[in-house]
Amino acid sequence: MDDGGAQHRLGNDGAVRAFVPAVDSRKIGSAGSVTLVGAGPGDPELLTLRAVRMIGRADAIVYDRLVAPEILALARPHAELFYVGKQRNRHTLPQDDINALLVRLAHEGKRVVRLKGGDPFIFGRGGEEIETLADNGIPFEIVPGVSAANGVAAYAGIPLTHRDHAQACVFVTGHLENGTMNLDWVALARPRQTIVVYMGLAGLSTLCRELVAHGLPATTPAAIVQHGTTARQRIVSATLATLPGLAKAAALVPPTLIIVGNVVRLRNKLVKFMREPAPDSAFALR
Amino acid sequence: MDDGGAQHRLGNDGAVRAFVPAVDSRKIGSAGSVTLVGAGPGDPELLTLRAVRMIGRADAIVYDRLVAPEILALARPHAELFYVGKQRNRHTLPQDDINALLVRLAHEGKRVVRLKGGDPFIFGRGGEEIETLADNGIPFEIVPGVSAANGVAAYAGIPLTHRDHAQACVFVTGHLENGTMNLDWVALARPRQTIVVYMGLAGLSTLCRELVAHGLPATTPAAIVQHGTTARQRIVSATLATLPGLAKAAALVPPTLIIVGNVVRLRNKLVKFMREPAPDSAFALR
Repeated sequence: MDDGGAQHRLGNDGAVRAFVPAVDSRKIGSAGSVTLVGAGPGDPELLTLRAVRMIGRADAIVYDRLVAPEILALARPHAELFYVGKQRNRHTLPQDDINALLVRLAHEGKRVVRLKGGDPFIFGRGGEEIETLADNGIPFEIVPGVSAANGVAAYAGIPLTHRDHAQACVFVTGHLENGTMNLDWVALARPRQTIVVYMGLAGLSTLCRELVAHGLPATTPAAIVQHGTTARQRIVSATLATLPGLAKAAALVPPTLIIVGNVVRLRNKLVKFMREPAPDSAFALR
Repeated sequence: MDDGGAQHRLGNDGAVRAFVPAVDSRKIGSAGSVTLVGAGPGDPELLTLRAVRMIGRADAIVYDRLVAPEILALARPHAELFYVGKQRNRHTLPQDDINALLVRLAHEGKRVVRLKGGDPFIFGRGGEEIETLADNGIPFEIVPGVSAANGVAAYAGIPLTHRDHAQACVFVTGHLENGTMNLDWVALARPRQTIVVYMGLAGLSTLCRELVAHGLPATTPAAIVQHGTTARQRIVSATLATLPGLAKAAALVPPTLIIVGNVVRLRNKLVKFMREPAPDSAFALR
């Protein structure tokens, strides 16, 4: 792999340093490449070391709406930044245009980073983007990220699996198509399973109603988290019966993540001794 | 939050530095705390910046079998390291003893990091460990990590979700109890869903047989990945009908991750232009 000579080294002071060489050491002449990078769930400190390195050596960065400014600040001074405004299924730039932009930049010989919120292979349409790259013979690489489900659950104090409560965890998207949700309710409304719904705010009442209609008790614990892992995080925790009303009263805004299942109840016990993460103070740029 | 004064700063050379002060700046006198940290799926470069910071300020680190030595090397010189040998459900130290160790170290006033492979809230029994902490009034914090599913899928070139192939992704554990797998086959054997099985090697033939018996086509693509995201990564990609035989012939060893669903087929197309990650060269310690 051409890593531009970058290495992480551990100094005696415990510091991790990503050295990015000043010279452009691209291996294959003018052949560009694309690295699909997961930017994590919100808190910039949840970026991986590999993501930091890839962002720091990119010639061009194509980024979505939910990528924090602190993360973009890791780019080189002369890197080109392209905002494509993708908010899950609402795009500033249509997906075809994003794909075409990635191909064009790579054909110009650039090292491109495609920076996506969360993990690129969980509801990020990363698979579609790299299919286009493969069709065009462009080398690519994937850097996984902390998915929204994992990040939000950790900061909210809700274990997604637990011996006594959930032996399975299922991720779905909750966006509405023509006013309804195209979900497999039979598979979702099962006992001893945690359900995580990405992008489900608009369909929250449909979701809760259908899960109860398909067999889950109306008393099943359920929570919705707005802007999880960031300073704007807000959590409404209730049951399938009461969550839609309480979430509406709280006037939550996207992005949100919904967690349904008995594990949500653990939060009440756990949160008492849980420390609040302080993302803003932990990631300072100068 | 007491973060020991550590901050990430971006230098003019594009380097990210985690400064850990030499003095111990614990806030609450002798009151200890525990930070549950996800160490990621294997490649040490998939550690988050927050995990690096927490490890670098710990007085004691309690770690599992799958945590890479490069990650432990980030500890301070005088940090106490405790190996508890947890390999998912096979423990060197029983879970009760791990819980008791965490409580004891925290009561001694130490800043404890509990370092777990992958993400602490996905099949890591993290929920149980923090329940014990909460019962004992010990403050704790959770640092999410890249889960094995996300890491392995990214390095294997298998998108876990895809518009055309999978609108849901379900995570389960495949370990055998008394020779059988205690899984909800009705919920698993559904179309347009990706199934990810942690710890499923021993039960692989049972898994494939039951999924077919409950309705999935025997031609459904399925892959098993050994030591995903590391230099020892090996992938066997086949179908539900042929995977058990091929995996046996390949003599795979744990840890493994199994991915079942039409998304596995995308790998054949994608892998041709995918660059091999080179984790060993990217994370050098001096």
